[in-house]
Amino acid sequence: MAFKALLFDVFGTVVDWRGSIIAEGEIFGQSRGLDMDWAAFADAWRAKYQPAMRRVREGERGWVKLDDLHRENLLELLEEFSITGLTEDEIDHWNRVWHRLDPWPDTVAGLTRLKSKFVLATLSNGNVALLVNMAKRAGLPWDAVLGAEVAGYYKPEREAYLKTAEFLGLTPGECLMVAAHNNDLMAAAGCGLGTAFVCRPGEYGPAQTTDRSAENEYNFVATDFKDLAIQLGC
Amino acid sequence: MAFKALLFDVFGTVVDWRGSIIAEGEIFGQSRGLDMDWAAFADAWRAKYQPAMRRVREGERGWVKLDDLHRENLLELLEEFSITGLTEDEIDHWNRVWHRLDPWPDTVAGLTRLKSKFVLATLSNGNVALLVNMAKRAGLPWDAVLGAEVAGYYKPEREAYLKTAEFLGLTPGECLMVAAHNNDLMAAAGCGLGTAFVCRPGEYGPAQTTDRSAENEYNFVATDFKDLAIQLGC
Repeated sequence: MAFKALLFDVFGTVVDWRGSIIAEGEIFGQSRGLDMDWAAFADAWRAKYQPAMRRVREGERGWVKLDDLHRENLLELLEEFSITGLTEDEIDHWNRVWHRLDPWPDTVAGLTRLKSKFVLATLSNGNVALLVNMAKRAGLPWDAVLGAEVAGYYKPEREAYLKTAEFLGLTPGECLMVAAHNNDLMAAAGCGLGTAFVCRPGEYGPAQTTDRSAENEYNFVATDFKDLAIQLGC
Repeated sequence: MAFKALLFDVFGTVVDWRGSIIAEGEIFGQSRGLDMDWAAFADAWRAKYQPAMRRVREGERGWVKLDDLHRENLLELLEEFSITGLTEDEIDHWNRVWHRLDPWPDTVAGLTRLKSKFVLATLSNGNVALLVNMAKRAGLPWDAVLGAEVAGYYKPEREAYLKTAEFLGLTPGECLMVAAHNNDLMAAAGCGLGTAFVCRPGEYGPAQTTDRSAENEYNFVATDFKDLAIQLGC
């Protein structure tokens, strides 16, 4: 084992998308006098994520970056939740809540330690602008912002993993995929990458039933990024 | 003027390729008992850079990343300078001297100041691995490593500039190209980007005749990155 780069899933692994959307929703709701279940709103938005990417993966449509998929899904969602009267700018601002997600409490300290020894890159389905703006706001110290948009393929397609390693000039085996999702890690392992499961049992809220534990053999299983840093000798 | 991102040329603008290659060459030469003009070696290597990219730009061959063009040119160079007996690993190590270039004295402090207010991204013909390894070693605080390889086009092709802005989710006019080379800035301006000329009169050594001054109207003309930071209010 001689890993040179750590490749990170971002939504759920690095940042708390659900808590962040709920928090912005509540502030927005108060300003509009809306009484809404923002957790349901966040979950419904996320539920449209995989089906939207699937249409791209399966070639039903050409490449569409995640910001645009998020916006298409948001338009449906606003209708489903009967939220009306937003201007185009307000819709754009809401859509960019994905650029303003907050990190988990251990994220920045953990990444900072890991950066001392490894190249840290994103391997996310988020597009570059989304990830760059998020990193700037949250202080995420990436060495490189890579992933689906740069590769031209959404995870879990093999090219997303393989091209990211290739951009870094590394073999798949020199890369360690870090994710809170078993399916992402299994896809990475299938491409020859190393795997680190980081447990994020609160990602989907208190009722989360999936990804509560490592369901396969991985190179590392960690409780958070600081634990991962310790296990990797950082 | 509301620039959101600064896009940097790297070789010559951010790092001193010539001085760095000479310095490594002298150490290498001493260890081998070679009496060589390493400045001539550095200049000859760089002289092969544009012709090699031209063949890609003009479609004579498909995409070849800069590491590979550098290596092809290095093989010619070793023969021209009668340097023999290197193993493949030694040739690879020599080729990666481009990953180990030193920044100019003002670079890291200047970038750090500029980063407080702007997204900082590379817009270099260097490939991602080269730029990531260089940044890691030299402490260059990029928010994103973009440019030719990610765009799939070498500067000064328009797509190199336009796609880099697009990856950042910005219009060309929201991007400020920073370079020590008049031709790079004129190409950027032709795509609608803002322009900042930073003078690097020692890039080509004491006899440098080109790019000693701003030859056109630019948004900013600076003596170094700290001066640019001051002019940009950082």
